Amino acid sequence: MPTTRRRQLKLGHMIEGAGRTWTDWRHPDAQPGASTDFAYYRDAARLAERGRFDFVFIADSLSINERSSPHYLNRFEPLTILSGLAAVTEHIGLVATVSVTYTEPFNLARQLASLDHISGGRAGWNVVTSWLEGSAANFGKEEHLAHDVRYRLAAEHLDVVQGLWDSWEDDALVHDKESGVFFDPAKLHALNHKGEFLSVKGPLNIARSRQGQPVIFQAGASEDGRSFAARRADAIFVGHGNIDEARTYYADVKARAAGFGRDPDDLFILPAVSPIVGGTEAEAQAKWEERAGLVSLESALRMLGRSFNDHDFNQYDPDAPFPDVIALGLNSQQSSTQKIAQALQRETLTLRQVALRFATPRGDFTGTPEQVADKFQAWLDTRASDGFVVQQSLPGQFAAFVEQVVPILQARGIFREDYEGLTFRDSLGLDAPPNRHTLARTGRAVA
Amino acid sequence: MPTTRRRQLKLGHMIEGAGRTWTDWRHPDAQPGASTDFAYYRDAARLAERGRFDFVFIADSLSINERSSPHYLNRFEPLTILSGLAAVTEHIGLVATVSVTYTEPFNLARQLASLDHISGGRAGWNVVTSWLEGSAANFGKEEHLAHDVRYRLAAEHLDVVQGLWDSWEDDALVHDKESGVFFDPAKLHALNHKGEFLSVKGPLNIARSRQGQPVIFQAGASEDGRSFAARRADAIFVGHGNIDEARTYYADVKARAAGFGRDPDDLFILPAVSPIVGGTEAEAQAKWEERAGLVSLESALRMLGRSFNDHDFNQYDPDAPFPDVIALGLNSQQSSTQKIAQALQRETLTLRQVALRFATPRGDFTGTPEQVADKFQAWLDTRASDGFVVQQSLPGQFAAFVEQVVPILQARGIFREDYEGLTFRDSLGLDAPPNRHTLARTGRAVA
Repeated sequence: MPTTRRRQLKLGHMIEGAGRTWTDWRHPDAQPGASTDFAYYRDAARLAERGRFDFVFIADSLSINERSSPHYLNRFEPLTILSGLAAVTEHIGLVATVSVTYTEPFNLARQLASLDHISGGRAGWNVVTSWLEGSAANFGKEEHLAHDVRYRLAAEHLDVVQGLWDSWEDDALVHDKESGVFFDPAKLHALNHKGEFLSVKGPLNIARSRQGQPVIFQAGASEDGRSFAARRADAIFVGHGNIDEARTYYADVKARAAGFGRDPDDLFILPAVSPIVGGTEAEAQAKWEERAGLVSLESALRMLGRSFNDHDFNQYDPDAPFPDVIALGLNSQQSSTQKIAQALQRETLTLRQVALRFATPRGDFTGTPEQVADKFQAWLDTRASDGFVVQQSLPGQFAAFVEQVVPILQARGIFREDYEGLTFRDSLGLDAPPNRHTLARTGRAVA
Repeated sequence: MPTTRRRQLKLGHMIEGAGRTWTDWRHPDAQPGASTDFAYYRDAARLAERGRFDFVFIADSLSINERSSPHYLNRFEPLTILSGLAAVTEHIGLVATVSVTYTEPFNLARQLASLDHISGGRAGWNVVTSWLEGSAANFGKEEHLAHDVRYRLAAEHLDVVQGLWDSWEDDALVHDKESGVFFDPAKLHALNHKGEFLSVKGPLNIARSRQGQPVIFQAGASEDGRSFAARRADAIFVGHGNIDEARTYYADVKARAAGFGRDPDDLFILPAVSPIVGGTEAEAQAKWEERAGLVSLESALRMLGRSFNDHDFNQYDPDAPFPDVIALGLNSQQSSTQKIAQALQRETLTLRQVALRFATPRGDFTGTPEQVADKFQAWLDTRASDGFVVQQSLPGQFAAFVEQVVPILQARGIFREDYEGLTFRDSLGLDAPPNRHTLARTGRAVA
């Protein structure tokens, strides 16, 4: 009987300088200016790499106003900060959130490919459709696109970007000094794309990297988002309320992937978690309460508004029943709004109750290092997830996770002791995708 | 009598992995794949920093075809590679060429500001209008913009980007943990721009850096380009045929700057040069001939075509008089075309003669280290330039310049011994521009 290798966790770290919530920056040890502090990002990425993490992850948004969360108000742009981090790390994947809604595919394909070369094959793209109405006004657009139109655009945009990435076959650049032949023109391909939204000729002015193409992430949890991710993504970044919800989601998305003819194991589902580790359970719980205590009603209302197209919830009595604004949120961040709508169907909640529940980070992953490792293992083994995106909860907590929880996961054989190869795809156990033109001509990945 | 400080050279280094010309990569010591080799760029930037250079410079283009030059076929994108270099250097300025024609100002303002923070205040933007017709097809556009329209767009685009950079006043982010006040909303400003080409609301989601705003470069040598640069640029990157032409240009642009009410000394005119240094004059001359010998008629015709909207010159007899195609080039790269037109007015030239003259790098800066230093000093002292952008001519030549020519310039007091401060503006002796909103409210740069 062949031995099968133990299924292992895939782990990412989301770096958010000024913290995850509206109030994390108020902690005595927090650095409120960290969102534009390169040393902070460098140290966080190197710490994740010391912990053998698969990747660091940079979230994004394209508009702010006076109600925006501190980290988003003043922060690095994802592709530039990751290019900086590429230069000071060696193994870790580098995942940039970039919206298809307001980015030229030629520029984006180029910048991601460039990051892929700078890092020696470690780039990833988290494909998102922008969900704040305010963004349109920063790009000369009158209206925000409807949710289903955004996903049609996303699919076409991804087609174009991935098509541009295959402009050069892997053996096209012959560099023959003697004959003076720099490249083989038969192996350079224009895209000549003309679709519903985009028209892009190509070819791209950069070749494929060591990993073939950057890894594709997706973060949508809506119906449209699930299908898109199941069909196109290598990994999914998602938020969950609890392990039951996570298992249902996992089974649904993996079944959809199989339905598209894919091996479901080639698609990694990675929920976001904010672990809090303490020497004892009581110590960990005290730290969780310290964090929750930083949240004020005012900041909770602002955070809630962010998921409802920046709706101003200060206009309502916080102790009256939750106002009738669900429709506002459905065209914005659909999945968050649906969770609130479901809760309201189960019970009557005031605005204050909804806002504080929504704003206070969950405590599911709070405990001793052993307890947190148990939770990680339970989610992995019961197919609630394939791993996690670990967020910083309180200052020092990500370091505690790397130093105290990772060794337990390694001892149990559910996380790597060392990197498997050179590229991000090597870490994920994914093959480099063959160049489509080489494949079409020869039936093989390399001519 | 007050002592006045000796006027000093400003020096930049253009990094071009696969070389400047169509044929430099054929040299036995050349690395044809260097255009996507991060180690090559890192070493070049650190060498320039060891030589106390003001900046490294990355040129760009937005489309390729089978006639494009080797360096441009497969290469890093400027903002990402410079973000990588920011992480491995400490003092040197980082200048990215980015076109206004096909870039959203909100995205560009953000990425340049992000580079400015990653580098601790060392970013620069070389503002260009794209000059290849092929670029339009990579961005879903049918037609290339006429030359004068491009400069109107450039001015408006720059207005928007600089306006977005001032979104945050320098003391807006108060970070008061006690009161919970992260920022002062009175010091965060939307732009609300609605102009001929662009509509951008703002504010930008990143604050100003230590140098206030990135340094502005411009590369246009046409009539439109000169006025634009004289009014808006901190530095001009330009190509010249000889020192007389350079002096005329210098006087013209500095007079225009004065006419716009500027101190002409705040605008640096920096021609591109490709020095070749040898132990003796004969040795240097032999190296120049080695380089010129790499150029073939075929590559010269391709290079010429690049300045004429990718016109295919292979269709003509190379030994017949130069064909009647000047009009084609005037809406493309105007300044290069005009130089050829002027030469054709003076004498009858065949296509072969024009192509080889245009393709063979000038030998004006070939000689012993002392002779090259003399040339640099002559250009500085006779107001033909304020410094130079030094290009790699042959492998090892930039290192030879740093090791052998820079010490002579320093000994003569016409180049710095060490960096003057922390930022790119500190190196150039330029003040950080005050935030416009702070200035409007208080009449002072800082409230």
